[in-house]
Amino acid sequence: MVTIDLNADMGEGYGAYDWGADDILLQYVSSANIACGFHAGDPHTMRKVVDSCLKLGVAIGAHPGLPDRLGFGRREMAITPEEAADFVLYQTGALQAYVKAAGGELHHVKLHGALYHMAANNAQLAAAIVTTIRRLEPELMLYGLPGSEAESAARASGIRFVAEGFADRAYSPDGNLVPRNVSGAVLEGSKEVVQQAYSLAVMGRIETLCLHGDTFKATEHAREIVEYFQGNGITVRRPDGM
Amino acid sequence: MVTIDLNADMGEGYGAYDWGADDILLQYVSSANIACGFHAGDPHTMRKVVDSCLKLGVAIGAHPGLPDRLGFGRREMAITPEEAADFVLYQTGALQAYVKAAGGELHHVKLHGALYHMAANNAQLAAAIVTTIRRLEPELMLYGLPGSEAESAARASGIRFVAEGFADRAYSPDGNLVPRNVSGAVLEGSKEVVQQAYSLAVMGRIETLCLHGDTFKATEHAREIVEYFQGNGITVRRPDGM
Amino acid sequence: MVTIDLNADMGEGYGAYDWGADDILLQYVSSANIACGFHAGDPHTMRKVVDSCLKLGVAIGAHPGLPDRLGFGRREMAITPEEAADFVLYQTGALQAYVKAAGGELHHVKLHGALYHMAANNAQLAAAIVTTIRRLEPELMLYGLPGSEAESAARASGIRFVAEGFADRAYSPDGNLVPRNVSGAVLEGSKEVVQQAYSLAVMGRIETLCLHGDTFKATEHAREIVEYFQGNGITVRRPDGM
Amino acid sequence: MVTIDLNADMGEGYGAYDWGADDILLQYVSSANIACGFHAGDPHTMRKVVDSCLKLGVAIGAHPGLPDRLGFGRREMAITPEEAADFVLYQTGALQAYVKAAGGELHHVKLHGALYHMAANNAQLAAAIVTTIRRLEPELMLYGLPGSEAESAARASGIRFVAEGFADRAYSPDGNLVPRNVSGAVLEGSKEVVQQAYSLAVMGRIETLCLHGDTFKATEHAREIVEYFQGNGITVRRPDGM
Repeated sequence: MVTIDLNADMGEGYGAYDWGADDILLQYVSSANIACGFHAGDPHTMRKVVDSCLKLGVAIGAHPGLPDRLGFGRREMAITPEEAADFVLYQTGALQAYVKAAGGELHHVKLHGALYHMAANNAQLAAAIVTTIRRLEPELMLYGLPGSEAESAARASGIRFVAEGFADRAYSPDGNLVPRNVSGAVLEGSKEVVQQAYSLAVMGRIETLCLHGDTFKATEHAREIVEYFQGNGITVRRPDGM
Repeated sequence: MVTIDLNADMGEGYGAYDWGADDILLQYVSSANIACGFHAGDPHTMRKVVDSCLKLGVAIGAHPGLPDRLGFGRREMAITPEEAADFVLYQTGALQAYVKAAGGELHHVKLHGALYHMAANNAQLAAAIVTTIRRLEPELMLYGLPGSEAESAARASGIRFVAEGFADRAYSPDGNLVPRNVSGAVLEGSKEVVQQAYSLAVMGRIETLCLHGDTFKATEHAREIVEYFQGNGITVRRPDGM
Repeated sequence: MVTIDLNADMGEGYGAYDWGADDILLQYVSSANIACGFHAGDPHTMRKVVDSCLKLGVAIGAHPGLPDRLGFGRREMAITPEEAADFVLYQTGALQAYVKAAGGELHHVKLHGALYHMAANNAQLAAAIVTTIRRLEPELMLYGLPGSEAESAARASGIRFVAEGFADRAYSPDGNLVPRNVSGAVLEGSKEVVQQAYSLAVMGRIETLCLHGDTFKATEHAREIVEYFQGNGITVRRPDGM
Repeated sequence: MVTIDLNADMGEGYGAYDWGADDILLQYVSSANIACGFHAGDPHTMRKVVDSCLKLGVAIGAHPGLPDRLGFGRREMAITPEEAADFVLYQTGALQAYVKAAGGELHHVKLHGALYHMAANNAQLAAAIVTTIRRLEPELMLYGLPGSEAESAARASGIRFVAEGFADRAYSPDGNLVPRNVSGAVLEGSKEVVQQAYSLAVMGRIETLCLHGDTFKATEHAREIVEYFQGNGITVRRPDGM
């Protein structure tokens, strides 16, 4: 039997601003990465999304980002490994409080945007972040790019690493993402995306697949992937098996 | 034997900005209220102060404030009880992560500035905050003004309330603070301040005394109080007795 | 001939977040109030909306708010008149730079949200704000509530005041807004709203009518009002007559 | 006769936080670069420092930085040239409003921290910033590093460039700054610093010398430089000769 986790970033609104289609994605995913107030998210939104996840049995992860709300955490910043670790600890702790106060348990951490990429490519940054996560809670898993420095750091420290794949990105034969600036790097057709999701699921290198909800097309793709999985013997299940 | 806790607000710098004389106060206090990043404080400062407290055996409290860094959390804002609770939970959780990651335990919560006063006077706000703290961690104590709505809410919910007094503020015969706009409300002479500290300690209504470190005079008063207590049979001890 | 200005708040997105239907409203309005980066708005958005307004001949106003992005400037804060004036000057200057750099001229100021209401009810706040606006540029007009402290302050200082009305709010016979907590205070039916807009226009007490773009219904009302005005002899014109 | 401008960064506090010794430096400098609210500074501080400068006849410059208050604008961020220009325009406009409202005129722009260095090394960033400054006000001068992309861009666009030197940094024989990571790059002794200031002044490549006020030693150096200049025939004068 093939099983896979489906994850999505959530709670990325801020104050009066909405973002993404959390309600739609919550029907499909087995785990959620909730923004923690730096690149996006705020105390009210965090509570609301945490409550929805607990009600639906969706695994809750912290989704910490860079302190750059104006840039939605997508711009790299020249921060030290120590700063990166402190930012992740602050945000993960804040989210963990909402989960605990609502009677649940925090399940994982997935870095956001530029921080995700920085930790994939910078061994020292990755090590500092992973060390901090382990100190906070050794059971927390880290979602990230397979083959990245984040994976190496997680495995070295004993944190469970969950390899993430993207249904809408092309992969080269060696298993790496085709860089965005290469033609064909982003898959757009429904059929392609669903096929890619299926391949990633059955090949077994990937443990979790990231769904997007920021456009109508993205939520449509999410629905199609889930329906295809249901019809083709792939079981969606959170990494902790609950 | 008379015992009393001495507390001080700490970690109220921000980025490149320093604030107060944390290093001096850390020699005197048995408990610290650490700013959590809204009115003041930042991830790096939080970690540093948490580490110092754990090293010295100082009880660590969260010191959450309003989301108004420009106003240092001193300006009232028209927030709902739900918003107040969400702000406190976010900040307390962030600080708790630093304490846990460093191997310690969070001891208490003390609200900052305008939020302290709002929770003293507004029963609904106080109840929402106390309920949230208890959900996060029922062992957390709440430091606050005796006779306030915060005290009522804490006692009603089963959270331990720790009555706080101020050595540099005059009290009326009924035990309440003389309002700041009344002449003589703020005590300035060393002798007066030390005498007031001593009276509050021996009268027994107050369990913790707040020391200040934002001026040279304030740290001098702190030192004089501690020395007077040492010479007059008053033992400084954290509320949890550790 | 009856003429009236139609204004709308614009540029109230932030970073990756959109807000309102600026493009639709820009077809209808003769003046725009552009958010300046405190309650909403950011440097990129400000430039884009300023450029659109200049292209279409829409009068440009600054729309300064309280420094509370999380609350969208809708929560009152206990600020001094001096602070209010400083906040308005900062934001108005920032927007004015965009207008000047694009070859235009700033036309007016309209306060946002809680600041609008605070300046309507607090004479000292209103006076401080108006004095500062006049010092910056005596030709700037102030849009505001007729009968308010803002109006008194503007008239006393020689700043031109432009009385603003709301098509979707009920007015009592004395000409004041029915408070929101009274039943029927907010008009919801298209017919009512259009009729109210027409009455306000022809009665002559109001010089500018505020249109909203934050919901589909609101933009529909805006369109219906403009069409009704076109068919009933009311000319839409900016207050400076250009 | 040798003349030189002395400049210093000012108004870099924030809310309750002080920074630097503005009052001391104001006695020595002929021009001031005032923080504009992104990396440091706030509406109240801006007004206060502008007023002091106008009273003393000190030339007023905007000192815009990156939107990173936590990092004091010292961390590079991956921003586009367009974003850089928008950030500079916003901040310069805000400060200009204070100057205009107080009856003065803005004299120059000096970029802060990481933005200063980014514009020195990145031609596109420099060009976008300079173009925007010229559109706002073609008379504004730009203070910056001689030989930098900022200088090239300013000269190409017709903005007056004012070459800045540092008394406490070593220069190589070719006139460039010795990189900070090279031993001896930062001058620490009073005598060295004063001698370096004098050399820069008489060699004529530098039109303005930057004084610092963030440490006691820095203000001492500032005083010593000014006294040495007074005793050695060097006249301190703002670049516009007023």
